Amino acid sequence: MNLALKNGDLCQIPNKLNEYVENIFEIAKGNNFLSEESSINLSTNSPYLKEVVECIGKFKGKKYDYIVVIGIGGSNLGTKAIYDAIFGHFDLIEPERFPKIIFLDTTNGNYIHKLISLLKFNKNVFVNLVTKSGSTTESIVNFEVLMAKCPSIRNDLVVTTSKDNNLWESCQSKNIDLLSIPSKDGGRYSVFSGVGLLPLSLAGISVKELLGGAREALKKSIDPSATNPAVQSALYIYRNYTAGKNIYNHFYFNPELESLGKWQIQLLAESLGKEGKGFTPTISIGTTDLHSVMQLYVGGAKDKFFTLVSTKNTKNDITIETPFTIDKSFTGQLEGKTIDEVTKIILEGVKQTFVKKLLPFNEIILNEISERSLGEYMQFKMLETMYLGNLMNVNAFDQPDVEGYKSETRHLLEG
Amino acid sequence: MNLALKNGDLCQIPNKLNEYVENIFEIAKGNNFLSEESSINLSTNSPYLKEVVECIGKFKGKKYDYIVVIGIGGSNLGTKAIYDAIFGHFDLIEPERFPKIIFLDTTNGNYIHKLISLLKFNKNVFVNLVTKSGSTTESIVNFEVLMAKCPSIRNDLVVTTSKDNNLWESCQSKNIDLLSIPSKDGGRYSVFSGVGLLPLSLAGISVKELLGGAREALKKSIDPSATNPAVQSALYIYRNYTAGKNIYNHFYFNPELESLGKWQIQLLAESLGKEGKGFTPTISIGTTDLHSVMQLYVGGAKDKFFTLVSTKNTKNDITIETPFTIDKSFTGQLEGKTIDEVTKIILEGVKQTFVKKLLPFNEIILNEISERSLGEYMQFKMLETMYLGNLMNVNAFDQPDVEGYKSETRHLLEG
Repeated sequence: MNLALKNGDLCQIPNKLNEYVENIFEIAKGNNFLSEESSINLSTNSPYLKEVVECIGKFKGKKYDYIVVIGIGGSNLGTKAIYDAIFGHFDLIEPERFPKIIFLDTTNGNYIHKLISLLKFNKNVFVNLVTKSGSTTESIVNFEVLMAKCPSIRNDLVVTTSKDNNLWESCQSKNIDLLSIPSKDGGRYSVFSGVGLLPLSLAGISVKELLGGAREALKKSIDPSATNPAVQSALYIYRNYTAGKNIYNHFYFNPELESLGKWQIQLLAESLGKEGKGFTPTISIGTTDLHSVMQLYVGGAKDKFFTLVSTKNTKNDITIETPFTIDKSFTGQLEGKTIDEVTKIILEGVKQTFVKKLLPFNEIILNEISERSLGEYMQFKMLETMYLGNLMNVNAFDQPDVEGYKSETRHLLEG
Repeated sequence: MNLALKNGDLCQIPNKLNEYVENIFEIAKGNNFLSEESSINLSTNSPYLKEVVECIGKFKGKKYDYIVVIGIGGSNLGTKAIYDAIFGHFDLIEPERFPKIIFLDTTNGNYIHKLISLLKFNKNVFVNLVTKSGSTTESIVNFEVLMAKCPSIRNDLVVTTSKDNNLWESCQSKNIDLLSIPSKDGGRYSVFSGVGLLPLSLAGISVKELLGGAREALKKSIDPSATNPAVQSALYIYRNYTAGKNIYNHFYFNPELESLGKWQIQLLAESLGKEGKGFTPTISIGTTDLHSVMQLYVGGAKDKFFTLVSTKNTKNDITIETPFTIDKSFTGQLEGKTIDEVTKIILEGVKQTFVKKLLPFNEIILNEISERSLGEYMQFKMLETMYLGNLMNVNAFDQPDVEGYKSETRHLLEG
């Protein structure tokens, strides 16, 4: 992964952040789950990884058609980000490839009605309920309804939750397989825990590569030196935020990374949007959204800053032939180039326009779309977010304001 | 469809807008395609609809497995909005339901490589190339490559384009079926033209219902009186925009409406984001994104205003049984309610929180998710956007600033 800062300069690191980086460095050395930052130890903590691998081992031998992940927010966004990048984005045009992960998140009668029809008579279904608190309304509703309508699913089921809640106890008493989430590990930082690793591994994703990438990023991003990419990227974001720009857009030039963008929206919004502070994270997909929001970005209010995300290498690229030749002067330019070369040329056109129009951006170039580069990117982004919390003086690990609608909802449910 | 303004009050309509509504009323009476606003006549112009219906008739009898729509931006966003709401959102869990629409928009080597494998030996494929200019880079690349690799597709092919370009001529000389887009009808206002109607009809969507809904909305939304919902909604948006809020979020409480949200982002961003003006449209999905951005919306900067979109009626709802009963005090509250009742209770909790936290919102309640209500909603939104253009003093029909990256790209392609 390569982080390209537009002017190439490394920013000086404020003392307070420097101290925090050193603190994080110590937390990584400690390699336990005692502090709020300890999600950074998920990719290196052997005892915990052993527990996860054992759980995976129990089910890995079976050939599943569908893996149903019941979870919402931090319980599925990271898993979906990785699955969609590698497989999910192509699921519709690869109908014969299995297993497929189905993500059941919100409560929607029509959706679960159709899902039950699909699963009812299929013997090769694995279900993973993921809820850290053990009491997420949507997930419990979906789980109970699925259990009521498809009882055979009971045999290939793991519940991923925290050890200190009623759900853990309840599953123990019912002899249901359990996988733990370290109690200080918040949902949006949990992708490298059992939350992500179990369903991803069963779906054929290389967990080893994923964690390898995470460890690579960890090493660079807890380094207390000026070249630390997560620190430099956080400083870029902070500088633009304090300059009054309140919208931060990630422009992904690979459509299979759309769900990665959604994971990132949660990470930034929930970690930093508090006490009246915080920018609004948005995502765009290249080249698709050039035909949607580019007019606004270039011609509208100058209230945004950007990170352009693309890949260095692509796979299964195709050389363009133009048998139809609609218009020779145009198709002649395309002939012989590859499809992904055209995409890169468009990206280059966008960059030149951003420079001309003075739109602030930096660039992240992934080596390719793979488990390794996704692991690297996500670990990097989680550390960047923690550093931003430090710079912005907010607690990047809580979400005090979501309690409001939840208590209103509980009230109404009781009533 | 019901538009609920929070305080229930009808705003007074500025004179300039009043004149414009009367102007639009006259354009509807004229029922031709001579002005930029004339997309409003698509649902009522018999000669044009006859052309579309004739084209549909040629292919309607065949049973297709896949309908491939090659188009980007205004050429596919409206079609995808409607298809995904009715079918597409469920395509993965309804593998046996055909035909399915595949949307080929951006240039991505890996995606088209897999798509070619799927289509190569399938005899039941219909292809629709949609490009108004006839020279959209991505669409031409995708079309030429598909033609080169799957030549048999040539037999079930329609090209939807404007009559005044090279592509139209080229297709005529090659005896390829053509469907016209009225020349003043810009992409983001074209869903009720052949652009949307042909692929949607072949996919099993009721075009009659869709246009019926559009006509219903048209009647109400060109009415030069204070109860005109598109005018009142435009005034709500304009009031918040001029109060300094630069982010306008549509919160859809039906996940199958996510693509409708993307259509709307283009409509608002491209129509109004110019001359340094315009707000940034974003979408959220309920209840999913309550677990992602709700913290930011409630606890972050007060720079947003909202429209909550939900439905009155649902289909295939399921009564909750709780055989597993994780925690009786909790599951006891769910037992006997339906899934969609729970969603509505959560929405109610959100609304109460928005009121308490003084977050500005209005509400749109669709009767249900159907062709009729989608037609109604989309026609209403297109008129609302035109009225906003009038209020904001911008031309809602051009996109002057996208030319920049396109000419940079052309330069690079030539070089």
